[in-house]
Amino acid sequence: MTNFELIQKLAQPASSKIILLVLDGLGGLPNPDTGRTELETATTPNLDHLATEGICGLADPVRRGITPGSGPGHLALFGYDPIRFNIGRGVLETIGIDFNLESGDIAARGNFSTINKDGLVIDRRAGRISTEQCAKLCQMLDGMTVANVRALVRPVKDHRFVVVFRGEGLDAAVTDSDPQQIRVLPKTITALKPEAARMADIGNQFVAQAKKALADQHPANMILLRGFSRSPQFPTIEEIYRLRSAAIAVYPMYRGLARLVGMEILDTGASIEDEFNILKQNYASYDFFFIHIKGTDSAGEDGNFDRKVSVIEEVDKALSCLTDINPDVLVITGDHSTPARLKAHSWHAVPVLLHSKWCRPDGVTEFSELACIGGGLGRFLATEIMPLAMAHALRLTKFGA
Amino acid sequence: MTNFELIQKLAQPASSKIILLVLDGLGGLPNPDTGRTELETATTPNLDHLATEGICGLADPVRRGITPGSGPGHLALFGYDPIRFNIGRGVLETIGIDFNLESGDIAARGNFSTINKDGLVIDRRAGRISTEQCAKLCQMLDGMTVANVRALVRPVKDHRFVVVFRGEGLDAAVTDSDPQQIRVLPKTITALKPEAARMADIGNQFVAQAKKALADQHPANMILLRGFSRSPQFPTIEEIYRLRSAAIAVYPMYRGLARLVGMEILDTGASIEDEFNILKQNYASYDFFFIHIKGTDSAGEDGNFDRKVSVIEEVDKALSCLTDINPDVLVITGDHSTPARLKAHSWHAVPVLLHSKWCRPDGVTEFSELACIGGGLGRFLATEIMPLAMAHALRLTKFGA
Repeated sequence: MTNFELIQKLAQPASSKIILLVLDGLGGLPNPDTGRTELETATTPNLDHLATEGICGLADPVRRGITPGSGPGHLALFGYDPIRFNIGRGVLETIGIDFNLESGDIAARGNFSTINKDGLVIDRRAGRISTEQCAKLCQMLDGMTVANVRALVRPVKDHRFVVVFRGEGLDAAVTDSDPQQIRVLPKTITALKPEAARMADIGNQFVAQAKKALADQHPANMILLRGFSRSPQFPTIEEIYRLRSAAIAVYPMYRGLARLVGMEILDTGASIEDEFNILKQNYASYDFFFIHIKGTDSAGEDGNFDRKVSVIEEVDKALSCLTDINPDVLVITGDHSTPARLKAHSWHAVPVLLHSKWCRPDGVTEFSELACIGGGLGRFLATEIMPLAMAHALRLTKFGA
Repeated sequence: MTNFELIQKLAQPASSKIILLVLDGLGGLPNPDTGRTELETATTPNLDHLATEGICGLADPVRRGITPGSGPGHLALFGYDPIRFNIGRGVLETIGIDFNLESGDIAARGNFSTINKDGLVIDRRAGRISTEQCAKLCQMLDGMTVANVRALVRPVKDHRFVVVFRGEGLDAAVTDSDPQQIRVLPKTITALKPEAARMADIGNQFVAQAKKALADQHPANMILLRGFSRSPQFPTIEEIYRLRSAAIAVYPMYRGLARLVGMEILDTGASIEDEFNILKQNYASYDFFFIHIKGTDSAGEDGNFDRKVSVIEEVDKALSCLTDINPDVLVITGDHSTPARLKAHSWHAVPVLLHSKWCRPDGVTEFSELACIGGGLGRFLATEIMPLAMAHALRLTKFGA
């Protein structure tokens, strides 16, 4: 019996409410000057109060030492073993813009990027061009055809876009063209198994056509593709947990991920208060809410320690909006760590706070990486967060007599 | 290699003794007035002394968030993965009363219960009738025959009984008639696969006959059946650990469970001192003793915080009886938590204390949920308790050269 089968068997209907508040990239590393992480530097009276009443711990999204991408990080938070349940980046981005993937479609994530006259990548993001500019460029590429396969190209945000290859006999098992570094040539897309040779060939031809079409569009004079993938079929949150679920997220990828596990997507404004208010307005209609805060991760990726601190403080200030409605279970955590010092996602364990009237308190009085080491939840896999939330919401019956 | 195969491979004969003292439902939740759990409230100088000399931790019987029944909770303590090794409630209860199950028998657990004139269940336990009354009612039902299948009905305790269906072509894959709630009708027993249709049909006919026979026996005017099951074949404690094992338990279910894993059952009086003295008298004859204390769980289930505290204190007072004989390893823990505040089994991790002269002490100076968070055993699965006990008894050889 898998963990899902176990939970499916034990899940029972209830009227309790669960909120999962995800501060993307929450975990950090200490500022060398102060010895305190972003979370430890932030003034967070509300989070600390919740930590005092609730129970804390440290979660590993995938395994110890493994740095998760956004997909695996979130799947783990929703209880899906990210090694078993694999989503390509292309599919995730595509779902996030409400694009309707058809059976057989292969989706890839694209970056508009800058190459120099030798063809070397000098900016993987083309100076982060505007979304408007991105949309204009996508129109130039949209509908290109290679060997009876159409490339459907759609803008995402800034320099990001998706391309969906629609046609016969395509297989997603191909490598990226994005080299993930600068001062090198884009990579040639290659097949990882014989059946994918056609996709690799078409991918390379499409990149060549796009390069030609974009020649005069400096800084966006090249595209880089990655995450070729086909839409997977996952059991839904409702099937596993019997929860009517809703997602509140500003950035498309997280909405796409939520949709993939069957959540309904609620429209929201861009601010933290907007997101919290949308939850409040829809509180009666769902059992489970996933709220995604992007700012912590963006600041971490930019290496901006102080801005990450500010975003955490902003969340703390807005928290009363959630605590006022007194949810049965409130979980606050991240999908992975993004220490500003590393300017990237990292493998460091993620602080977890679970607040419920059925917590056994643990003596932790502040929400911080250091305090969470001694928390009552201990050190555990992020996939166990949902079973714990379900238990504290009294939504799991006893296992065995 | 499974964990069992590993242990089987490494287990070596020795003269050391291991005692596993199980305080059923030991783990608790804080009394809101004091912030202290039952175990933290109890005055336990002897347990605290053992915790100081030994090593502590917190165990999850099944998985984080999963509330175990008594069967899974105990199997985990004996080292059996409770998800892999599954015992039906009917079998467990039946074995507990020394009933000799034959091959092909299907056992179910029964409650005498009360229905009103509309047939709705108004008391699932018929006011907890006496064991004597239960025995009398069982005699009325015993030997009833449906389609060449005999129903053998035996009293357990209070309102509890077992029924063993003996005949050809029976399969245990049927649902319960016990609705597990009141103000609803008893459920119809239904087959979970085609082969079980005969059992479902016979079960329903037996319930109908019993209802008719009990019509005048208010409050015990109905029966509710659950946990239809066939006796499983598990490897024994002796096969896995090379331990000659004995069980000391007052309540039949725990004796049944111990017998299922091959333990010998020692007769005992009902008090904690009785149980401890029986161990002492049989100390030379076995390598491993499982002693079960029921009072902690009963008090927790009744929501009686103070009584649970008293039972823990009673165990503490009697402990010298066990420590005087200086066992090589003494493990004190629970099969799950039963917080008085919840009046039920719960998912909360269970405090574990392991005392041996080979412990690496951990700075814990009292046996409590809070102190165990910082214990040297950390947070772990209960199935790891037996390997740890074996190791501290110097009964496991080195793995690999």
